[in-house]
Amino acid sequence: MYTIDLNSDMGESFGAYRIGNDEGIIPYITSANIACGWHAGDPMVMDRVVKAAKAAGVAVGAHPGYPDLMGFGRRKMVLSPAEVKNYMKYQIGALWAFAHSSGMRLQHVAPHGALGNLCQYDRETSRAICEAVAEIDPEIMIFYCAGAVLGEEAKAMGLKTASEIFADRAVMDDLNLVPRKQPGAMIENEELAVERCIRMVKEHRVTSITGKEVDIDGDTLCVHGDGPKALAFVERIRKAFQEEGIQIRNFL
Amino acid sequence: MYTIDLNSDMGESFGAYRIGNDEGIIPYITSANIACGWHAGDPMVMDRVVKAAKAAGVAVGAHPGYPDLMGFGRRKMVLSPAEVKNYMKYQIGALWAFAHSSGMRLQHVAPHGALGNLCQYDRETSRAICEAVAEIDPEIMIFYCAGAVLGEEAKAMGLKTASEIFADRAVMDDLNLVPRKQPGAMIENEELAVERCIRMVKEHRVTSITGKEVDIDGDTLCVHGDGPKALAFVERIRKAFQEEGIQIRNFL
Amino acid sequence: MYTIDLNSDMGESFGAYRIGNDEGIIPYITSANIACGWHAGDPMVMDRVVKAAKAAGVAVGAHPGYPDLMGFGRRKMVLSPAEVKNYMKYQIGALWAFAHSSGMRLQHVAPHGALGNLCQYDRETSRAICEAVAEIDPEIMIFYCAGAVLGEEAKAMGLKTASEIFADRAVMDDLNLVPRKQPGAMIENEELAVERCIRMVKEHRVTSITGKEVDIDGDTLCVHGDGPKALAFVERIRKAFQEEGIQIRNFL
Amino acid sequence: MYTIDLNSDMGESFGAYRIGNDEGIIPYITSANIACGWHAGDPMVMDRVVKAAKAAGVAVGAHPGYPDLMGFGRRKMVLSPAEVKNYMKYQIGALWAFAHSSGMRLQHVAPHGALGNLCQYDRETSRAICEAVAEIDPEIMIFYCAGAVLGEEAKAMGLKTASEIFADRAVMDDLNLVPRKQPGAMIENEELAVERCIRMVKEHRVTSITGKEVDIDGDTLCVHGDGPKALAFVERIRKAFQEEGIQIRNFL
Repeated sequence: MYTIDLNSDMGESFGAYRIGNDEGIIPYITSANIACGWHAGDPMVMDRVVKAAKAAGVAVGAHPGYPDLMGFGRRKMVLSPAEVKNYMKYQIGALWAFAHSSGMRLQHVAPHGALGNLCQYDRETSRAICEAVAEIDPEIMIFYCAGAVLGEEAKAMGLKTASEIFADRAVMDDLNLVPRKQPGAMIENEELAVERCIRMVKEHRVTSITGKEVDIDGDTLCVHGDGPKALAFVERIRKAFQEEGIQIRNFL
Repeated sequence: MYTIDLNSDMGESFGAYRIGNDEGIIPYITSANIACGWHAGDPMVMDRVVKAAKAAGVAVGAHPGYPDLMGFGRRKMVLSPAEVKNYMKYQIGALWAFAHSSGMRLQHVAPHGALGNLCQYDRETSRAICEAVAEIDPEIMIFYCAGAVLGEEAKAMGLKTASEIFADRAVMDDLNLVPRKQPGAMIENEELAVERCIRMVKEHRVTSITGKEVDIDGDTLCVHGDGPKALAFVERIRKAFQEEGIQIRNFL
Repeated sequence: MYTIDLNSDMGESFGAYRIGNDEGIIPYITSANIACGWHAGDPMVMDRVVKAAKAAGVAVGAHPGYPDLMGFGRRKMVLSPAEVKNYMKYQIGALWAFAHSSGMRLQHVAPHGALGNLCQYDRETSRAICEAVAEIDPEIMIFYCAGAVLGEEAKAMGLKTASEIFADRAVMDDLNLVPRKQPGAMIENEELAVERCIRMVKEHRVTSITGKEVDIDGDTLCVHGDGPKALAFVERIRKAFQEEGIQIRNFL
Repeated sequence: MYTIDLNSDMGESFGAYRIGNDEGIIPYITSANIACGWHAGDPMVMDRVVKAAKAAGVAVGAHPGYPDLMGFGRRKMVLSPAEVKNYMKYQIGALWAFAHSSGMRLQHVAPHGALGNLCQYDRETSRAICEAVAEIDPEIMIFYCAGAVLGEEAKAMGLKTASEIFADRAVMDDLNLVPRKQPGAMIENEELAVERCIRMVKEHRVTSITGKEVDIDGDTLCVHGDGPKALAFVERIRKAFQEEGIQIRNFL
């Protein structure tokens, strides 16, 4: 029996600006990573997405990022651990207000963009994020990219964790995601992407960008919510999982 | 037997910028209105002020404002009720994270600056603020300026309320504060300010700027935390209250 | 012989967020109103749009707005005249750097959104904008909505002006635009919109939303650059103007 | 005959927040590095400081920084060269508007904080800054910290340059400033600071933090404008320079 959570980054619109198709995608996923207003998102968007998740029975989590709306949180900033910790608390708390208002709890925290990338290897930053979560509510789960030290630090601190794998991103031998700017970073071929996902879930194996077979554990699979093909792809992957006997469910 | 809460706006520093003397004032007040990062404040400041309040046994509340750091929240913005409601939730939630991390609950919400002024007469905005509070936690109290419709709306919604009076601000006949730019807006004479405070608490009366005697109810008295004389003044008012048999305590 | 300038709001993307189809529309217009980073736009976008305008022989102007990215500059803020004046200077100067780097001069300034709406009737704000322009470069032209006091103030100060009319917006009897939220605000029927434009240019007359025939002078016609039909509409209006002997050119 | 320019960072206040004593210091310096609203400063502040500089006959230059008001521009951000170049243009242009309105030209550009530190060794970033300046106005001078690659790149591009030395900062053997967090970073002893300054100007030598005698060239000396002793110190250094026959003047 196999199970997997399907997550997607949500709530990345801002004011008059629209990114993604939140209301369209939400019914097909089981966990929503919701931007918290720093790298993307605003209170109107957060309210709307939380309510859509509530209506669809989808779990919500915080997707906090750097204070860099202009860079969409994709540019590394050199912050102290205390800054990371407090910036996380702020953003998690802001999302909590919307979740709590809708009678939902926060299932998880998944750091965004360059902050997430830093958690692949940076223990101080990873610990700062975990401390913020532990002090707010130790029941909140940490989503970490498969292979990231964030997962190790979260477990060491006694937090619940879920290892995240990506439907359309190539990995290096050490499980790091191939940077977006490198050729081959995105798995464009949907059939191949679906096959990779099934294999990651059932065999815990994936072919890295160098052609090597590597072990990978995935508790939650990230699918993208923007782009014209996002909706068709998530429908396709749900169908394929069903046929393979993989149950799709979140952690609540 | 008379009682009064002493509150002050706190946490208005931002990054490298300092406003006020939070750590100095906190031991002398009973409730801290903490800025939430929109018109002032940042997560580092919020963390520091909440911890100082915890250490001093001072209750904490959110002091949310307009998204206008450049104007310190003192410039009116025309927002929809839905925007006000969600902007309040966001800021209250952000502060909640720090309070909750320190084992504290949010005692109250007190809107800041031009948003607070709008609550003197604007029922839609007042209701939006009350709805945000009610949906997050109906135990959170609304601080409203004495005479403001915000108080009426909060009571109509079944929320707890505290009527706020000001130690150093002149009032008009209808209890509205005299705008800062008008002559006589600030009660500069400290002795007079103290006398007025005692009279407001014990007799529920104050002399308006036109010289009229008007009724006023105060549950919480606002003292300022910035300026070179702030600390001396709050010490003085505490001493005077003690001599007059006025007990100083918050609502927890 | 009739002439008209065709303008459009450009450069309203921000970071990862895209609004409009700047590169697509620019070849069809003669003047670009470029957002300056406060209500929309950022330096990368400004650089890109200025270069596209340069390549297409399109004149550039500043489209400054309120410091309210979250509200896209569409929410009124109560600012002092000194604030308006300096906020305009800042934004005009920022755009100047990109124009000047490309060997272009700033043709005009056209206030955006709620600030532009305020210039319909607010003389202090209008004068503040005109003073900013006059102090930077009195050769820069003021674009004002037909009927707005901004035009009167600009002329009184000796500035060059262009009266702006709108291809797809209904007007009231006093030439004010019908607010976007009111029914009938947008002229959805393209054929009607084109006919109205031709009549405004050739006969200086338009039918208001109340059905009244009113006088209107237009030196520059605003077409929208976003929405799926924007490109087709601007092509259509150019063709109609050509057939009617209306020459399309800017003010340089 | 010796000459030196005296510069100071100015215009770092923001909205209700005050940093420094701009009006007090300006009469004692010859060049003002004015923050441009990204890491500090706002249009009201820029206007005020430019006018004070004009009144005092002090040259003005742009002091652009990272888009990080919360971090005061002191936290490294990983930006592309194109981003740096356009961010510089934006900020330089914004300040230009105020200088030009007052009939002043921009004398120089001096990158702030973490961006300035990066210019010690990062050639791509340094070139991006120089390209921005060259495209706006090649007469604008680049201020670079003595020893920084920014100076080499500016010279290679044919720009005018001034090597900056610091009155109260210790240097390492390679002329890099000792980071603020390290012990001994600040020369607290004023008499020693003055002696060091005189020696740097007249002998082009300084004692590094390791005790080594190193060569140093200084065209402009940075004095701090904040802190309670700033004014007394700049008066003292002016007097000492006068006694030593060192003429204080800017580059205009």
